[in-house]
Amino acid sequence: MSVRKIAESTVRRLSLYLRFLEEFEEQGATTVSSEILASRGGTTSAQVRKDLSFFGSFGKRGLGYQVPELKTRLRDILGLDRRYRVVVIGAGKIGSALVQYGGFGARGFDLVAIYDNDPAKVGRQWNGLVVRHVRELEADLAREQADIAAVVTPSEAAQAVAERLVSCGITAILNFAPVQLQVPEAVTVKTVNLVLELEALSYVLSTRD
Amino acid sequence: MSVRKIAESTVRRLSLYLRFLEEFEEQGATTVSSEILASRGGTTSAQVRKDLSFFGSFGKRGLGYQVPELKTRLRDILGLDRRYRVVVIGAGKIGSALVQYGGFGARGFDLVAIYDNDPAKVGRQWNGLVVRHVRELEADLAREQADIAAVVTPSEAAQAVAERLVSCGITAILNFAPVQLQVPEAVTVKTVNLVLELEALSYVLSTRD
Repeated sequence: MSVRKIAESTVRRLSLYLRFLEEFEEQGATTVSSEILASRGGTTSAQVRKDLSFFGSFGKRGLGYQVPELKTRLRDILGLDRRYRVVVIGAGKIGSALVQYGGFGARGFDLVAIYDNDPAKVGRQWNGLVVRHVRELEADLAREQADIAAVVTPSEAAQAVAERLVSCGITAILNFAPVQLQVPEAVTVKTVNLVLELEALSYVLSTRD
Repeated sequence: MSVRKIAESTVRRLSLYLRFLEEFEEQGATTVSSEILASRGGTTSAQVRKDLSFFGSFGKRGLGYQVPELKTRLRDILGLDRRYRVVVIGAGKIGSALVQYGGFGARGFDLVAIYDNDPAKVGRQWNGLVVRHVRELEADLAREQADIAAVVTPSEAAQAVAERLVSCGITAILNFAPVQLQVPEAVTVKTVNLVLELEALSYVLSTRD
């Protein structure tokens, strides 16, 4: 399937629509209107129709969208018609929480390995996944490539780890370290940082007073 | 302290600069140049100087910034010269991981309570925090207000929970549910969703092939 590149904000909304469609399907709904998708997504029905029009015509005027058809199409667009192998680098509190969370498999993302350089952490096990020494990383990825790497190291180690991952051919990184990773243009990094989000809230709270 | 409203992207960079300054201080540095801050933050030294110039003059040309002074000033700007009380609504996997993580206190964010409506979860305890029934929420907040609420409920419950929090006077929400919360303009919501981030990566990977 070939689609033209769409904006990051659109991709996020498509993910949300997919989540809602799954819920509607669980509740037995077979069709859904752009108005209902919009109200759940905090957007307008015009925005929903625009977002979905990128990928051809789905809905029938007045009849709404077919839930299973639209769901399949969105999964296809988001690349969720296959599974993804995810490695986690760093077995600290967040790394171990990711592995213990266990909710990613249901969404198509399989956490296949977790690494650390701390001998005290190597060998620990969560959800059946044993922490491996990070020196095994290159050999492991050469044997079986991963699609996505989550970088959950201390910030001072993150850049070097990212460079090792890029050398191994990893092109998609989920970064939890509070640094801006420098990667080649062909590599995509998404950053998640709860402390940054909390500090954005504390900033707003303090300027509001 | 009164500063004019600054862009969200600037606030994020200030948080990053603060993190780097703390690391530099641990390593014994007393001054730091805008070039070094820029290289760690993946930005330019001109951007660093611009970001910091919002808040008056810190650095001396050629001498760089005084680490302790700039650190204190950034903490002040970000509202981190005080502590924040955070309540968590939802004691599922992510809610419990937040409480077990335990790393927020060191950054000034105290997780003071966790709630759920599932009798099987009420009474469980992590890090000394006992899960309370969500029916206690209003009374608890009336007795002692919280600054920030983390919404970690299933998506279909999130909007109603957000409305209860807003009724209780909460004005800052960290939302982990995959919905766009509808809140009054005076309330700030930051959304964190790892599955959305992973799906943004799967989208990129699938369009690249």
